Order: sequence, then C-alpha cells, then structure tokens
Amino acid sequence: MSSRAVEHARTDTGRSARKRQAIMEAATALFLRDGYRDTSMDQVAADAAVSKQTVYKQFADKEQLFRAIVLGVTGNSEAIITDMTAVLRSTEVASHEELRSILTDLARRYIDGVLQPHVLALRRLVIAEAERFPDLARTYFEQAPARAIEVVANVLRTYIERGLLAADDPRLAAAHFAYLVLAIPQDRAQFYPGERPSAAERDRLAGEAVRIFLAAYAAPGGGAR
Amino acid sequence: MSSRAVEHARTDTGRSARKRQAIMEAATALFLRDGYRDTSMDQVAADAAVSKQTVYKQFADKEQLFRAIVLGVTGNSEAIITDMTAVLRSTEVASHEELRSILTDLARRYIDGVLQPHVLALRRLVIAEAERFPDLARTYFEQAPARAIEVVANVLRTYIERGLLAADDPRLAAAHFAYLVLAIPQDRAQFYPGERPSAAERDRLAGEAVRIFLAAYAAPGGGAR
Repeated sequence: MSSRAVEHARTDTGRSARKRQAIMEAATALFLRDGYRDTSMDQVAADAAVSKQTVYKQFADKEQLFRAIVLGVTGNSEAIITDMTAVLRSTEVASHEELRSILTDLARRYIDGVLQPHVLALRRLVIAEAERFPDLARTYFEQAPARAIEVVANVLRTYIERGLLAADDPRLAAAHFAYLVLAIPQDRAQFYPGERPSAAERDRLAGEAVRIFLAAYAAPGGGAR
Repeated sequence: MSSRAVEHARTDTGRSARKRQAIMEAATALFLRDGYRDTSMDQVAADAAVSKQTVYKQFADKEQLFRAIVLGVTGNSEAIITDMTAVLRSTEVASHEELRSILTDLARRYIDGVLQPHVLALRRLVIAEAERFPDLARTYFEQAPARAIEVVANVLRTYIERGLLAADDPRLAAAHFAYLVLAIPQDRAQFYPGERPSAAERDRLAGEAVRIFLAAYAAPGGGAR
C-alpha cells in the first residue's frame, strides 16, 4: 500500500473503533434504562448517531451487542487492577506502618475504580439480566470481582512471605479486604445510582477498613496494632 | 352480623389475601424475568391464576403493583431482624467467649435471612429498576440493609456499654460487621441466582467474619483475642 493508502486505512480503523465505542455506550445506557428486551437496534443506532447498517456491520444482533458490552468488563478490570497495583511496585515494604500506608492507598484506588459510573452501570446491568444470561453473569463475576480479589490475594501472599501478615487462607483474607473496603460504598451505589462518597468519606472508609483488616491479619510483633 | 356472616367475611378476607399474595409472587417472577416494562397485567393474572379483574381490584395499575411488591420489603426485613435478634434476648453475655458465640449465631442467622430466594429476588429487582424508581430504591435501601445495620448497631451499643466492645462509631462498626458477614455470599448470589453456600461454608464465613470483627472491635482485656 502507498503511504496515503495506509493512512487512509488507519483513519478508517480509527473511525470504525470510535463508532463501535459509541454504539456500545448508547446500548449500555438503553439496556439499563429500558431493560434488555425493550431495547431495539433502531434506537441504539439513533442514540449512537450512526446508521442501522453500521450497527449490524459491527454486531450481528442484539444479543451479540449485549455480549460484547459485558465482555468489555475485562478491559475495565485490567484498568482498575493496573491502577491499584501501580502503587505496589515502586515501594519496598519493611514495616507494619509502611504496610498500613500501602494498603490504604490500595484501598482508596480500589474504591475509586469500582465506583466509576461506567463500572457501576455495567455491574447493575449484569445483575439485572443474570437470569437471562447466566453465562455472562458468571463471566462478569470471574473477570471483575473475583479477578480483582485474586490479584489482592497475590499481593497479600508477598506480605505473608515477608512475615508482615498472617493468614492461612490468603484468598479469603483478600475477599475480606475487598469487601471491608468496597461493600459499604458499592452496596449504597447500587441503590442510589449517581451518588458517590466525597473524597473525605472515601478516605475514612479506606482507613477504617485497613485498620480492621490489620487488626485481624497483621502478623504479631510488627507493631501494626 | 350473625356468626355465619362473620365466618363468611373472614373466609372472604383470607381468600382475598391469598389472591393478593399470589399476584405479587407471580408479578415478582415476571418483573425479574422480563423487566418492568415488558411485564403485562394480563400475564400477571394468567401466572397468578386469577382474573384480570381481580388483579385490578387489588392494584390500580402496574406501577402500584410494583410499588406494593417493593414496599413488601418491610415485612421481609422485620422477619429477618426478628429471627436474628431472637438469640440475643435469651442470653446474658458476660465474657468475650460468650460474645463470640452470640455474634457467630447472629451472623449465621443474618446470612440465612438475606440469602432467602425471595429476599435475593426482590433485591435484584430493585437494583435493576433503580433508575426508573429512585424513590423505591431509596425506600428499599432504608428498610432493608440500612435498617438491619441500625438494629445491629443497637446490639453493639449494649456490648460497648458493658465494656466488651470498643467502637467510637457503633453504626460504622455495625456496617463492618454486616458486610464482613454478608458481602461474600451476597455478592456472589447476585451473579449466580439460585446458588447458595452449603451450611458448612456458611458457618465458616460467619466464624471468620466474627473473628475479624472481634480482632478489631473487642475491648482490650476481655480475652476475646
């Protein structure tokens, strides 16, 4: 291909990707507002400001569109996990005080990630349609909450190895960490769409969750209590 | 009224209440399966095995029927709370070991109450329709999770007064207790409708949640750690 043809193909790919993104965002909003059954591909096309033909070029039918949206959770999860764990790599943790500080930072990032409007919206959508699409609900659960907890478990294992934490079952400890941190604001957000805690409230929730976690899981003798 | 007329009226009331219950159960299942918008009063009548006239005698329209179902959460909550707190009244708690045993029993009852299929179904229905009916979502949240946490907070206050627990903010301590106990099985149940933990798994979750809670909130010197 000539350089102009390459440039043209690139622009086409970019435009196509943008349209795909617009279709998925419009469809997510419609699925949430009207439910799966009442959302039509016509309406998706109109809300995304693309032709119906374009919608069908990207997605064979409504079910494929719904599946693509839910499977997009993998991207959300990776972004949240990358942000959460960014704080870990740069820091050596030698004392319980340093551990407390790292875990509090991790907790704050966890809350921020999970309370993003598009993350909450997808979660509510999957819960609403869990009986219609049990395989997608399972995939969502494995790729989102369970995947994040597995990453936290791996983080905790490194602190257990260094003698800073004590836990027979690191996966259960990670689930306790995750839900101590997240459950209060996340459960509330499920019933009050659009409401979010202030930064101060988020910091308080993160700090108290870490205090409780360390009271239960800090290895004796490191001074974290 | 003659005694026969009284008996007749009573039977009528009982029949009417049973029909109302059948309509609400059929409608809950339909709302969950098809969403609010796609559920028709005709279908509700058919599934409840009553006439359409009977449905409209009980509920003016679909929205009133939906509201009645969600507001029925108050009855669910009271039943769960009564069962949870039944264990408290009969027992004097003087030591940390007794406290651990009571809280573990409370935790088990909490999990059993919240994981009942009709309780989970209503919860999923309200989350699914939270944008359409924000006032009902708020009412549900206040009457169900927040109300149960308030009851737990009152329980914890009595143990704080007796010097067995230490917490500056009993409501936050109660929320930590509630979500330590519930969040793992409840979050999973939202994505795997119909799946429930075994009794052994439930007991393990309850025991571990109480262990963590007491590690953080037991007053020093009572021997609970």
